[in-house]
Amino acid sequence: MTYCVGIQLNDGLVFLSDSRTHAGVDNIATFRKMFVWQPGDRVVVALTAGNLAASQSVVNLLDEGFGDAANSTLLTVPNMLEAARLVGAAIREVYRRDGEALRSQGTEFDVSFILGGQIGQSEMRLFQVYAAGNFVEATQDTPYFQMGEIKYGKPIVDRVIRSTTSLKAAAKCALISMDSTLRSNLSVGMPLDLAIYPRGSLKLQLLRHIEENDAYFNNLRQRWMDGLRRVFDSIPDPDWTP
Amino acid sequence: MTYCVGIQLNDGLVFLSDSRTHAGVDNIATFRKMFVWQPGDRVVVALTAGNLAASQSVVNLLDEGFGDAANSTLLTVPNMLEAARLVGAAIREVYRRDGEALRSQGTEFDVSFILGGQIGQSEMRLFQVYAAGNFVEATQDTPYFQMGEIKYGKPIVDRVIRSTTSLKAAAKCALISMDSTLRSNLSVGMPLDLAIYPRGSLKLQLLRHIEENDAYFNNLRQRWMDGLRRVFDSIPDPDWTP
Repeated sequence: MTYCVGIQLNDGLVFLSDSRTHAGVDNIATFRKMFVWQPGDRVVVALTAGNLAASQSVVNLLDEGFGDAANSTLLTVPNMLEAARLVGAAIREVYRRDGEALRSQGTEFDVSFILGGQIGQSEMRLFQVYAAGNFVEATQDTPYFQMGEIKYGKPIVDRVIRSTTSLKAAAKCALISMDSTLRSNLSVGMPLDLAIYPRGSLKLQLLRHIEENDAYFNNLRQRWMDGLRRVFDSIPDPDWTP
Repeated sequence: MTYCVGIQLNDGLVFLSDSRTHAGVDNIATFRKMFVWQPGDRVVVALTAGNLAASQSVVNLLDEGFGDAANSTLLTVPNMLEAARLVGAAIREVYRRDGEALRSQGTEFDVSFILGGQIGQSEMRLFQVYAAGNFVEATQDTPYFQMGEIKYGKPIVDRVIRSTTSLKAAAKCALISMDSTLRSNLSVGMPLDLAIYPRGSLKLQLLRHIEENDAYFNNLRQRWMDGLRRVFDSIPDPDWTP
């Protein structure tokens, strides 16, 4: 499984993904689920979830171009809306190529993307693209998307994230929501990939591969654990009488 | 949907359930999911999840007796293992009666129970009974069961609950895990039912119907929210450089 989160703030974008994939519990592996295009005139970040073969195929098409859009890649599209359409088209192309063969093996075509970034002078935007190639965009009301094992980490994101949240606070919140997910679900695993993009900069401020021994992340996990415990202990016991 | 949790501690048992049921988002209703048998010589508590018609039918059979076990009810079984077997048999009986008709309407037979208590001098035990009528028992290693929308509230339960946790602390933890679930999932709703059973007492210490305006629960929710926010703010921002 997977846990990915993408957040759109007034100040920019934050992306976080885990790296565990598995085909059954006895075939667990580590694959990066964050892909970054950052050639200078743009920053595009894609997080992937679902069938690994399908999402890798989509990323290959996005790099190579394909079909009617053979000259169109994430390095050439003029804005983020076109980038989302291109990802949707690439997903449909992979479905066209592989969908029937997958079905004949009893495997569902299951792939989705969180896609965000900024291209040239055009708007910074954040999308979630589904297996049918359709997509939705983040708004002020709901400025984030999650994919995969989303429920464990959703409460803290719901509580903290607003469009006005700072980039660093949003990154911290994403990491805490990942911590809750890692603790409760074995199908989500280290290392993590974190990207922070300040609006208008056309350059990631941070692209960090976070390993098991990362001092900041381990400190955050410990402080969160200790802090929760402190808050828990500070709440009075139920005082109802029978 | 539903959120129910049952916890077995050295000191006793704690049960908490929500009361929201829905058949589609435009047919939402409130039904108690906690059933208590407490005639004096025993305490048996059942929490239900899944299809409401099926779980109500099971409870009716448990009260009336049925089939080969016509004289056997939760008021007559000699111990909790027999109680779990009876619940399993009642689920199978309801499946025998309704399963095919449900299938013909495209509805899955989906029902499960958390069942705990103590009968006379026999052992206090906690079980989860599945739709097939089979069941598992809580242990020292995993002293709790959840049903329904379990993921939002699982991290805090994983962090706090041990067999050595006190009854009141476990009740507090169950309420906090319910709070996280209520905030993130509309299909789980107030009011709540909370039961606390001290081992060996054969009498519930508390059976509380918690409404929207409950002072303790609202105070707990506010303190937890404020406390989380304080812990969040107290953790340093990421200090990685690009």
